[in-house]
Amino acid sequence: MNIFEFPSKDQYADILKRPTLAFDEIEQKVRPIILEVKNKGDEALRKYALEFDNILIDNFRVDLPEIQNAGELLDAELKNAIDQAFENIYTFHKAQQITESVLETMPGVKCWRKSVGIEKVGIYIPGGSAPLFSTVLMLGIPAFIAGCKQVVLCSPSNHPAIYYAAHKCGIIDVFRVGGSQAIAAMAFGTDTVPKVYKIFGPGNQYVTSAKQLVNQFGTAIDMPAGPSEVAVLADYRANPAFIASDLLSQAEHGPDSQVILVADDLAIIKSTLIEVKKQLENLPRKEIAKLALENSKAILVENMEIAVDILNEYAAEHLILQVENPEDIAEKIINAGSIFLGDYTPESCGDYASGTNHTLPTNGYAKAYSGVSLDSFVKKITLQQISKEGIKNLGPIVEIMAEAEQLFAHKNAVTVRLES
Amino acid sequence: MNIFEFPSKDQYADILKRPTLAFDEIEQKVRPIILEVKNKGDEALRKYALEFDNILIDNFRVDLPEIQNAGELLDAELKNAIDQAFENIYTFHKAQQITESVLETMPGVKCWRKSVGIEKVGIYIPGGSAPLFSTVLMLGIPAFIAGCKQVVLCSPSNHPAIYYAAHKCGIIDVFRVGGSQAIAAMAFGTDTVPKVYKIFGPGNQYVTSAKQLVNQFGTAIDMPAGPSEVAVLADYRANPAFIASDLLSQAEHGPDSQVILVADDLAIIKSTLIEVKKQLENLPRKEIAKLALENSKAILVENMEIAVDILNEYAAEHLILQVENPEDIAEKIINAGSIFLGDYTPESCGDYASGTNHTLPTNGYAKAYSGVSLDSFVKKITLQQISKEGIKNLGPIVEIMAEAEQLFAHKNAVTVRLES
Repeated sequence: MNIFEFPSKDQYADILKRPTLAFDEIEQKVRPIILEVKNKGDEALRKYALEFDNILIDNFRVDLPEIQNAGELLDAELKNAIDQAFENIYTFHKAQQITESVLETMPGVKCWRKSVGIEKVGIYIPGGSAPLFSTVLMLGIPAFIAGCKQVVLCSPSNHPAIYYAAHKCGIIDVFRVGGSQAIAAMAFGTDTVPKVYKIFGPGNQYVTSAKQLVNQFGTAIDMPAGPSEVAVLADYRANPAFIASDLLSQAEHGPDSQVILVADDLAIIKSTLIEVKKQLENLPRKEIAKLALENSKAILVENMEIAVDILNEYAAEHLILQVENPEDIAEKIINAGSIFLGDYTPESCGDYASGTNHTLPTNGYAKAYSGVSLDSFVKKITLQQISKEGIKNLGPIVEIMAEAEQLFAHKNAVTVRLES
Repeated sequence: MNIFEFPSKDQYADILKRPTLAFDEIEQKVRPIILEVKNKGDEALRKYALEFDNILIDNFRVDLPEIQNAGELLDAELKNAIDQAFENIYTFHKAQQITESVLETMPGVKCWRKSVGIEKVGIYIPGGSAPLFSTVLMLGIPAFIAGCKQVVLCSPSNHPAIYYAAHKCGIIDVFRVGGSQAIAAMAFGTDTVPKVYKIFGPGNQYVTSAKQLVNQFGTAIDMPAGPSEVAVLADYRANPAFIASDLLSQAEHGPDSQVILVADDLAIIKSTLIEVKKQLENLPRKEIAKLALENSKAILVENMEIAVDILNEYAAEHLILQVENPEDIAEKIINAGSIFLGDYTPESCGDYASGTNHTLPTNGYAKAYSGVSLDSFVKKITLQQISKEGIKNLGPIVEIMAEAEQLFAHKNAVTVRLES
């Protein structure tokens, strides 16, 4: 980690720069795959399963009993942990469900909204070394609460923890398909994989590129994605071992992960860097973490006000506040995906089980995007109902405005009613 | 309008097909403009203002007094109408502001969300024949309520109604820039036009294409856009003059506007088509409306259940229910941008002043997207705070899950805290 001492405001952008994403090249590889799945469906899925994942597969659909009975294959401890995480995540997302009341904006003019679950949604869970069952919970639970009628899950992994998490969320349409071809299958539909309207979930650069491409074809996606990142704000009294463990838990994600430490005390930075080296040695993924740390930065600032400025400019996916009064700082943070307050709130708690969602905006997108929540799985339809009395109150206003915008048919739709 | 009688389910997709959008060709024209604005800033804006809008312009920023005093140039009737529309739209959007409470998902584990207005947003208002001041209200009011710190408005039009609406919404950063170059200016920033994080607003195909392009560069946009559309559901007792006026108020938007009439009664369809012809004759924009009607469809169905199926498949931007029990039908609609219930609720009331937002998902996007609301202008940041007691309750669960996902640094971030 490089240390930057008291950078000036015009240096922020440079210091906080994310690794550049070279999507064009990947897109050129992904586009033909997408189009082949669009045109040839299951046949293309079979071809790519063999080519990329080395699986000869005839039936992509995972049998329901395999999903329903997956819990039996899990260690009791893990099963209980998933159950408790489910509870917490369910509780937090269920509270996001609100009923809005009908408003009478003028006498006889009633307006309201209703939330409707997106009918068909898709969840992608990558394979690779680790079975990301936690992401199944993070996406499956709000989909369930939203009342999405069909939830399609694609994953190259057949780990029972993934199936158990899916089962807990009431997901029955599970397919063993991976990579960009899985995204295309859900976007366009094949004989086996149902077409969905919105696709969620993480993945490598190919999956991310595929999501961007199908988005251009008309399928909604959860959000644009970049490498995961954390920023930690620390003061003199923070615990270097805690800070180091948080930095490392981000760094182990991948060599392109970003880790930022901001502090108003040089001693804490230095002792944290020593701790990082110490803890690093014991990590199975230390080679990955080392690479990530090479691009990472420690920034020494004059005071907390400047720290807040820098953190709002960075707009971290995860922001951990290991400072004396974390509530005061959190109050001033306007750009972040999720904020972790205090010394005993590591990011990994939010990643798994505190209750908040771990699908969060990276790459500075926290300036404009929220993380995944119940809102991501519903549409809010507006409704209005105007009575005969109401049109008398509202109609003349609409007539005047429509005429001023030179839309006379718009005006006439009111006039014919007023004259009736 | 073509009449389709009792189509079978496998015919729906074909009948409900939208006009194809040929974006590739337009994108090729727009991309170099975007890049030139990105690289040359104001110089490029000046060049294109001259080339496309035939305006020789030195200073794009509209002087504050011109915005503040615009109301004086308006007809009192129009000014009052805008004031009343402001009230209604404000009331409806203000009610969308909610404070969520802090949840304790486990003892010592507190989770909550806070809504923060997106710091910098951009609003584009097209020029052309009509000054779309109503759209200024529809975007400016929620931006104001959300507490967006900087609201940038670009429009090639200098109509006082636009400036008055902007003034009502507290907008002071107004620039006389139009077209795809305005979108680029707001996405990348120039010496004059501030960079924003999210861009809202309608426009022609060039503007739409520019929004899609800057979205790929990282600027958020309100939603993907297609031509405007309405579907009307009518029964035997509906008023043909009302239905015709609603169909025409959509058809006058543009030759690519879509108009769909669904009814369970052939007589009402026939008398509506007669009414359409009659009303069409008196419209200034009748040539445009005629073209739109050529692609439009009237669908006769056996019963209301089938009608609901068709309407959910179509996912109309605007859906008007001129039926006996509109509430019952509205209950069953799961895909629509905005629903207008009953005979006295024309779409034009929602377009201008009922209170609901008129920026709505077109082109079938209502299956996955909501219209613009207060939500579009805020990000919801999640927060969590875990006490020393809380980490004892939650920590072991996280340790087990992290280990199962083979993320040992994630696990360690809990372990160091539990051991401290």
